[in-house]
Amino acid sequence: MILTVTPNCALDVTYTVDALRPDTVHRVREIRRRAGGKGINVARVLHAVGARTLAVGTAGGAAGDEFTRELRKADLPGELVPIAGETRRTTTVLSTTDNAVTLFNEPGPELDTREWAAFVDAVRGLVGSADVLVCSGSLPPGAPVDGYAELLGLADGIPTVLDTSGEALRAGLAGRPSVVKPNAEELFEATGLAEPIEAAANLCGAGVGAVLVSLGPEGLLACTESGVWQAKPSAPLSGNSTGAGDAAVAGIALELARGGCWPDVVRRAVALSCAAVLGPLAGDVDLDHYLRELPAVRVQRP
Amino acid sequence: MILTVTPNCALDVTYTVDALRPDTVHRVREIRRRAGGKGINVARVLHAVGARTLAVGTAGGAAGDEFTRELRKADLPGELVPIAGETRRTTTVLSTTDNAVTLFNEPGPELDTREWAAFVDAVRGLVGSADVLVCSGSLPPGAPVDGYAELLGLADGIPTVLDTSGEALRAGLAGRPSVVKPNAEELFEATGLAEPIEAAANLCGAGVGAVLVSLGPEGLLACTESGVWQAKPSAPLSGNSTGAGDAAVAGIALELARGGCWPDVVRRAVALSCAAVLGPLAGDVDLDHYLRELPAVRVQRP
Repeated sequence: MILTVTPNCALDVTYTVDALRPDTVHRVREIRRRAGGKGINVARVLHAVGARTLAVGTAGGAAGDEFTRELRKADLPGELVPIAGETRRTTTVLSTTDNAVTLFNEPGPELDTREWAAFVDAVRGLVGSADVLVCSGSLPPGAPVDGYAELLGLADGIPTVLDTSGEALRAGLAGRPSVVKPNAEELFEATGLAEPIEAAANLCGAGVGAVLVSLGPEGLLACTESGVWQAKPSAPLSGNSTGAGDAAVAGIALELARGGCWPDVVRRAVALSCAAVLGPLAGDVDLDHYLRELPAVRVQRP
Repeated sequence: MILTVTPNCALDVTYTVDALRPDTVHRVREIRRRAGGKGINVARVLHAVGARTLAVGTAGGAAGDEFTRELRKADLPGELVPIAGETRRTTTVLSTTDNAVTLFNEPGPELDTREWAAFVDAVRGLVGSADVLVCSGSLPPGAPVDGYAELLGLADGIPTVLDTSGEALRAGLAGRPSVVKPNAEELFEATGLAEPIEAAANLCGAGVGAVLVSLGPEGLLACTESGVWQAKPSAPLSGNSTGAGDAAVAGIALELARGGCWPDVVRRAVALSCAAVLGPLAGDVDLDHYLRELPAVRVQRP
């Protein structure tokens, strides 16, 4: 079972509008709501490809009730820690005329010390039956800045993946994750180094097993103890890139769970990431495309 | 007492972001939530200037619960008809770098026949103790297209104000409102006539007592049985124009309640409208500016 941990999960709301024009009034043509947050998206992709997964999150207030209902409706196994604050919302505005995707992310409710401890306890109680531990997304206000180091420390010998940014990433490195998966911008922000391979080596020096850098349409760059690989999609794709990074994390976790080698890890990550670009919402994957793309991903030494 | 009727009320959410840029991710810096919808804004302005008012609306689902709490917190007297659907949200994005105001309006929950009848009954039960009846905003899905004609027909001899647009306005004219308050665009849409005085005369011919056209920074144009007036702010203003039209309606209703003449009606409407531009959110007015502007509004025959 792959355990995904999302301390700052969200109710994802998607608005479809004709065209997003700042400083005007828009009529929302379609509204979709679903349980979200990066680790929830990872669990959704894992569930879609038939892998056993369990999502740990938090839920509070009216948005938390709706989040809980949507998680159940999606048939996603989840353990939700109740909190006093209101679960945050993220609003995605899809503009149909130009396919622009504009996101508005609320910062999230503040957790108190007791709530954070309950969240850590929930992960502690479940990680013993997990094959891989995945920690995803921002830390909520009130969580300790090294919250991810604490959570990663609970994993007793199983592979771990950390996908976050900024201070949460820097402080999380102390938890010695097996893999971190920044994008190029997050990697630069964490290291101050513009050259990805050099920056990744810097993180490996800080105790990370491997650094897998997502490069958008250019695929994934893996810097590992046994060398560097680049994996590229077989062809350019257009679609909704929101959630493509979460799908890559799902692919990484899948291969880590089965003990795959690095070329297999990056191949599966890129194939699932491409399949997510073709899915309508974050966490959706086009399964046919996934199976077609998996053997077609170009994996090579850079 | 001024009775405001809002069949499609909303939970208004305001997001503050640094700068709205389509096709990017935004961190929401501040979130404010309040009970909204055009008639609720009218009631809020009336309440702020010390006038007796009562707002009739609907409430359903989690957003409806929050709407109800926010209405109580604002100390606004309200009669809310419960509905099975979820109260809609409107999201306003304030971009601090350029003061752009971008709105996303959900269409609203569908009312069934029984719910619409309960709404009409609520208005029928309250209109007897009202001095003015104000009908504001869109009709929700499921309401009859001539819903406003039905509601206006409940007013037994008291002045009535209709502030809506499109088909709801055209079909609402059969209720013979004392005043309609379209903006220039809504007036053109309703009549197909580009010249405001000609278009207003056309609506008067359709049974409307007077047409008060809001012209943004140019103030208000009133076409009445006793002539035409234009009222202009004493000076140009910059601020948040969302809700300025609702504040104008509050001014119109106030003067109609006290039997004011048309020049007084347009003067008060423009003064409150200007005060609303200086208020931070729709329904807020700068009371000092209102009192300063009231004698300064320039009212003249065009």
